[in-house]
Amino acid sequence: MTDKTWRVGLAGLGTVGAGLVRLLGEDPHFAPAGARVEITGVSARRRNAAREADVSALPWFDDPVELAKDPGNDIFVELIGGSEGVARVAVEAALAAGKPVVTANKALIASHGVELAAMAEAKGVPLLFEAAVMGGTPAVKFVREALVGDEIGAVAGILNGTSNFILSQMESTGQAFAQVLAEAQRLGYAEADPTTDIGGFDAAHKIAILAALAFDCAPTLEAVEIEGIEDVSLLDIRLARDLGYRIKQLAMATHTPSGAWVRVHPALLPLDHPLAQADGALNALFIEGRRIGRMFIQGAGAGAGPTATAVAADIADIMAGARRPVFQRAASQLLARAPVTAHGALEKVYLRLIVRDEPGVIAAVSETLAEAGVSIDSFLQKHVDEGPGVPMVLTTHPAPSSAISAAIERIGLLPALMAPPRRMPVARI
Amino acid sequence: MTDKTWRVGLAGLGTVGAGLVRLLGEDPHFAPAGARVEITGVSARRRNAAREADVSALPWFDDPVELAKDPGNDIFVELIGGSEGVARVAVEAALAAGKPVVTANKALIASHGVELAAMAEAKGVPLLFEAAVMGGTPAVKFVREALVGDEIGAVAGILNGTSNFILSQMESTGQAFAQVLAEAQRLGYAEADPTTDIGGFDAAHKIAILAALAFDCAPTLEAVEIEGIEDVSLLDIRLARDLGYRIKQLAMATHTPSGAWVRVHPALLPLDHPLAQADGALNALFIEGRRIGRMFIQGAGAGAGPTATAVAADIADIMAGARRPVFQRAASQLLARAPVTAHGALEKVYLRLIVRDEPGVIAAVSETLAEAGVSIDSFLQKHVDEGPGVPMVLTTHPAPSSAISAAIERIGLLPALMAPPRRMPVARI
Repeated sequence: MTDKTWRVGLAGLGTVGAGLVRLLGEDPHFAPAGARVEITGVSARRRNAAREADVSALPWFDDPVELAKDPGNDIFVELIGGSEGVARVAVEAALAAGKPVVTANKALIASHGVELAAMAEAKGVPLLFEAAVMGGTPAVKFVREALVGDEIGAVAGILNGTSNFILSQMESTGQAFAQVLAEAQRLGYAEADPTTDIGGFDAAHKIAILAALAFDCAPTLEAVEIEGIEDVSLLDIRLARDLGYRIKQLAMATHTPSGAWVRVHPALLPLDHPLAQADGALNALFIEGRRIGRMFIQGAGAGAGPTATAVAADIADIMAGARRPVFQRAASQLLARAPVTAHGALEKVYLRLIVRDEPGVIAAVSETLAEAGVSIDSFLQKHVDEGPGVPMVLTTHPAPSSAISAAIERIGLLPALMAPPRRMPVARI
Repeated sequence: MTDKTWRVGLAGLGTVGAGLVRLLGEDPHFAPAGARVEITGVSARRRNAAREADVSALPWFDDPVELAKDPGNDIFVELIGGSEGVARVAVEAALAAGKPVVTANKALIASHGVELAAMAEAKGVPLLFEAAVMGGTPAVKFVREALVGDEIGAVAGILNGTSNFILSQMESTGQAFAQVLAEAQRLGYAEADPTTDIGGFDAAHKIAILAALAFDCAPTLEAVEIEGIEDVSLLDIRLARDLGYRIKQLAMATHTPSGAWVRVHPALLPLDHPLAQADGALNALFIEGRRIGRMFIQGAGAGAGPTATAVAADIADIMAGARRPVFQRAASQLLARAPVTAHGALEKVYLRLIVRDEPGVIAAVSETLAEAGVSIDSFLQKHVDEGPGVPMVLTTHPAPSSAISAAIERIGLLPALMAPPRRMPVARI
């Protein structure tokens, strides 16, 4: 690293882009050893939009692809977003021009990471994406660099701040999902179209990327099992709490004999678990390694400051000149990722039933579980004021997923059932 | 990074050294992109000591300095320990020979980091020390690389597993310090001479290193205020808990207008604070940055597997070819670190008094504090069965450190006092 000035072309001037403009304006010498960073071109959809940074003095490009190709910058930073369209074309153009790329675009990396990695590696330039996962919390650097000498068994975390905020608010205010979502939208914590966040897709992008880094495989969005938080009810939040658990939207990737099992879904965590205690807009991640044991990181998962800091860290890494594969192996050597079914795996589940208050129901439920070889860990039947029927909840001991499914299917047929059984995994991390 | 084989000379075959031998034996291709690591020389004090790794087939060097100089290895790994003597000479010899160095030696880096950094930078070779702080938890990489674009306000953590284990055990078993220490020594959790750990010196080395990275200054052990855990009493642990706090051995570095204030001491943390919940042999660290907000990392702070993983990560970084200053600036440009006195700073403290059970004591104590402009946040007087007198504890609101000291000095002169006042800071992180 020398005293040279590194010229950055920046496409995308939303929250993070504006944060980066401010950071580089305040501290152009942020990287060690006297090097300097300067923005030599910006691009965004509308030139005159209201922004939280003054870009009027910066060279403007109407077309981000032209900016990506422009020899007037040494590093291309893509903060446009979206797996297709102009973001993808611009990143490809920069890589084709042999230019290092920094992106916060989780959808792009989760969907096209392998092709882009192959392009970057062919040109011998870095493609970095720290800001794509957990905002300013360096989960990517953690898994890719700090744990390179370990064999990772699982990564599991809370990777979507909006979902986490909504679940936290439901618990603390006692308001139902729709009401809390509307409030979050009013406050700007949730998008007008919240599907990406609450449907689990944003977290799926992120866990697909972490799984790729943890398990030497290609990031494969299609192989992620995804369930959103739309159907998490206040009733389940309360009953789970009575049993000593908190419901969190969990993103998880586990090493299994048949490959990496990657999923996003609501899950129960013991109240004293660090992931259960990551409230509000925090992101948090557990990593289990054969050598390191259990490691935990937590921080802001979004926002201008944290995410721009992650982009700056990637820029500094480019300046430091490290050469690594984009993922843990050369793109051509990444393992293929097929969806892994968990039918063989042991699972511990939460099961909530709404039953008619009549004799014999507990016996029928527990016998059905016992016949399937599933034993009960905790059990609670509780009168609530709302709605007809009585909620009956239980958690199982770990049992084969297929046995649990079979038992629940049979329980669903019991005449005393007044609603379909609600099943959620109890996380074992 | 190419397919080349990197040859490692390893000096020191204790727990971590043996862990590294095992790691490299099991997984010589651990680093990305096909490169391979091979141990081409080992050295330790006694050739025939019982070890948790078989080193009989590895070339043996009686003198680690010869190993450091030997052209048969490309990277020198120093796991001997100690700030002086052969460890220092060997590291200097390797750097003088233009060889990258990886060390887990916190005492060496905390005491001679600047001179060694100057040597490394003069030769243009890396000097890495991830394993020196928090074992396998990448605190160094975090502060040095991930937060390079932020302005850090404070780093605070639990950096000594032995002290943390002893305090955890005192709380959970109700046994006094000496008894728990003896048990920890019997179990191998504490050294026969435990001074380095329980006296706060080990944590002081680590926070000196983190402070250097966080605040662009030279690591300066002499500028660290150090208080060990020897005088933490069961009584204070219980009373702190009654007030909603847990006593932890805290290492902390804070940015102040007059420089970095760095200290290690027992402190109170609210029970629900993540640092309060890091129990047993865990290490944990909070980082506060202007842009990133608050970040938290937690993991195993010692042990063969975690620490060897950190050494392996440093080896992989050398293979990746990144060139950074050893600290955040070139050695010659690091800020000098003088001890910062906290007399101007606001402090919140815990004060425990043992008083004669007679009228007017509460009034005298509270008036003395009020006269000094120190207001009381919480207060508890409680009869206990042990010893004479009654414990009276309080926490103050944040107040100038000098005012608190003056008030405590006057309180110490009250005739009702049966023992010197015990003061501990309540951490505000």
